[in-house]
Amino acid sequence: MDKVNIEQKLSLFSDHWSPKIVGELNGQQVKLVKLKGEFVWHKHDNEDELFFVIKGSLKMEFRDRTEIIKEDEFIIVPHGVEHKPSADEEVSIMLFEPAATLNTGNIINEFTKDVLDRI
Amino acid sequence: MDKVNIEQKLSLFSDHWSPKIVGELNGQQVKLVKLKGEFVWHKHDNEDELFFVIKGSLKMEFRDRTEIIKEDEFIIVPHGVEHKPSADEEVSIMLFEPAATLNTGNIINEFTKDVLDRI
Repeated sequence: MDKVNIEQKLSLFSDHWSPKIVGELNGQQVKLVKLKGEFVWHKHDNEDELFFVIKGSLKMEFRDRTEIIKEDEFIIVPHGVEHKPSADEEVSIMLFEPAATLNTGNIINEFTKDVLDRI
Repeated sequence: MDKVNIEQKLSLFSDHWSPKIVGELNGQQVKLVKLKGEFVWHKHDNEDELFFVIKGSLKMEFRDRTEIIKEDEFIIVPHGVEHKPSADEEVSIMLFEPAATLNTGNIINEFTKDVLDRI
């Protein structure tokens, strides 16, 4: 039940595409992740995902459009919707999603992280 | 699935202690609320609550201690834990909690909001 300082937590890691758990509630997890470059197209069959941009700018491609999400903006990607995150420059994101969410969803590849650190 | 800009949403209301729904996912809701003054001691028997401070400073009293949560910090209050939020100056908060969460928890009084606006 300690409070969490986002900047302090972000200072603890520098790797990309590797979410860290910083909070848990109601079966959901709060994660921080730094992204740079292109991710893989994927979807989550059962989990909706919230991406809140802390620092930088996130590009989120959908099959029918592209959204740019900036600092202090968030987007909710519903389950079943294919999406591909990317970022030209490093972006820091806070995620809210069910604890069961796998970062690459229905795809298993070199980006897949099935065990996440708690920081 | 539109993106949400926090500042824009905060500009749409000025009342205190009246959470507005700005997103829903996995049975949870994302709410924005402005607080000023003292709230009531209460607890939520079944819901954990996350308070993320967007602007200002939040005082959260527990029966055994007090936490000050500042901008870009969050605290998770587990279900069953009595707490009393307050703020000397207006503070803007993002809440993440189950859709069923009543703002005053186990207490019904003049602060209770059982129907929330979506903005």
